[in-house]
Amino acid sequence: MALASALAFEARDAGVRVGGVTVDHGLQPGSAARADATAQLLRGLGLDPVLSVRVQVGDDGGPEAAARAARYAALVRAAGEHGARIALGHTLDDQAETVLLGLGRGSGPRSVAGMVEERTADGVPWWRPLLGVRRATVRQACTDQGLPVWDDPWNADPAYTRVRLRAEVLPLLEQVLGGGVAPALARTAALLREDLDALDELAGARLAELLVDGGLPAGPLAQLPDALRRRVLRGWLRRAGVPDLQAVHLRAVDALLTRWRGQGRVDLPGGAGVLRSSGRLTLLSGAARPAEHRAAVDHPAEPPEEPCP
Amino acid sequence: MALASALAFEARDAGVRVGGVTVDHGLQPGSAARADATAQLLRGLGLDPVLSVRVQVGDDGGPEAAARAARYAALVRAAGEHGARIALGHTLDDQAETVLLGLGRGSGPRSVAGMVEERTADGVPWWRPLLGVRRATVRQACTDQGLPVWDDPWNADPAYTRVRLRAEVLPLLEQVLGGGVAPALARTAALLREDLDALDELAGARLAELLVDGGLPAGPLAQLPDALRRRVLRGWLRRAGVPDLQAVHLRAVDALLTRWRGQGRVDLPGGAGVLRSSGRLTLLSGAARPAEHRAAVDHPAEPPEEPCP
Repeated sequence: MALASALAFEARDAGVRVGGVTVDHGLQPGSAARADATAQLLRGLGLDPVLSVRVQVGDDGGPEAAARAARYAALVRAAGEHGARIALGHTLDDQAETVLLGLGRGSGPRSVAGMVEERTADGVPWWRPLLGVRRATVRQACTDQGLPVWDDPWNADPAYTRVRLRAEVLPLLEQVLGGGVAPALARTAALLREDLDALDELAGARLAELLVDGGLPAGPLAQLPDALRRRVLRGWLRRAGVPDLQAVHLRAVDALLTRWRGQGRVDLPGGAGVLRSSGRLTLLSGAARPAEHRAAVDHPAEPPEEPCP
Repeated sequence: MALASALAFEARDAGVRVGGVTVDHGLQPGSAARADATAQLLRGLGLDPVLSVRVQVGDDGGPEAAARAARYAALVRAAGEHGARIALGHTLDDQAETVLLGLGRGSGPRSVAGMVEERTADGVPWWRPLLGVRRATVRQACTDQGLPVWDDPWNADPAYTRVRLRAEVLPLLEQVLGGGVAPALARTAALLREDLDALDELAGARLAELLVDGGLPAGPLAQLPDALRRRVLRGWLRRAGVPDLQAVHLRAVDALLTRWRGQGRVDLPGGAGVLRSSGRLTLLSGAARPAEHRAAVDHPAEPPEEPCP
């Protein structure tokens, strides 16, 4: 509601149209009425059009992930139909929770880098204008404008990891570390995104330079710093359509460069393989799908778990 | 004790000599007797020489930091005298605590990257062979060998942030995130160190390429990814001896490249300044000290807070 109100306010001056989408997940009694009431409030703020969309939630990856997938698909569809970009109401506190979730996952720096403020995915621009704003500020903005704040009961259910991070872990961390933890997490995540984006960009450029006839020269590759070399290799294999690439595969391919003692073909998922011969790495057939037009250096644009917008 | 025993065991086969240093901080009653008893145990393991050093703890930066500084100075002195490298007993759990401490500080990715397994500092090689081993395993190793485990009462005093992270925050995180948190933190820190080392290495190489007559060409610099460009600038200014460089200074210098509209000289601490003219950045005099031979791209080699070894 705070985001809708702020966008409606800014849109008047900017001469831009702002619409709204409420998504009824159909998972709680009375959710349809709740979605309609929210749609009415959005119309009252001057948003136009306001769509109320009922989605079917599957059960892939648990209830949170399935609800999120259904909701995001509905947003992408609506934005596509109206040539719009999507604005989400995630706050700095949501960001801090996302960083902690990523830390616990241990799947590497990108999972600790949190949500991005702007990106394009599924052909639609996404935007999180409140990512630097505290949750308490957003809530106060609603109160000040007489906008009703509705607390989704799911957001207080300790069955969800994110809820416990919010209600138990972050307050304890605040107390132990002496305050300012959420902004500290968000700040670190922002700096980290910048570092990781730089590495991805450098790896993409290096891959483009080195790639000749689908193969890569071993000598120049071996001289790159570890983290850059592995990104170049990952980008190369992903672009060639090798599916389900795991760290173990990447390590074996990397060993053709860093621990070369005449190893044979390294087998990869999907039947592909990498061979080093005459000082070059070559990808052998078996890669089922050709490049499905991904970025040269691919990484999950987003950590998989995100809070309810 | 576990580290001393393991090193003594390995040293016999390797034909290497292992010594020990016990440090008496003089901060607890009976600490001298405790240090002597520990030295006796180390001698019993076959370590030679075993030094028992009494240090004077100042009060710079609080009791933990002051004790650490005094202890590390004693280790560096002993290692220097014997041409030895220093082995420290930090475990994977110490690493997880260090990462959390760094996160709470919010001072950027390097502070989340934890302790390094091997490095050279103050002219002495440091080494943490147990950084991938759980604390419980280390403790069990002592029990199995009949080595007494002494728990420093300071390590249980909740007045210390690290103690509360260990006793309260990490167990809660384990419970909420479903276990495996300490290894996840350590794994992420290791991957992060690799990424940050690569960026620092690339920035150092780029700086060496671009630096002519102490100045840098604006055009090629401006085309670098943000995180790389700022590292090159920081390395340049630090190498030129500009003291106390803060993020705000770096941003102002960076704006000469990314938001160039004819700005004048950017003032830096120590009386130095950066000027853009004829498409080049030039450092103007005032930098008090010449390069005191630091790495081209400088970063704290270690997060400032470390646990007791």
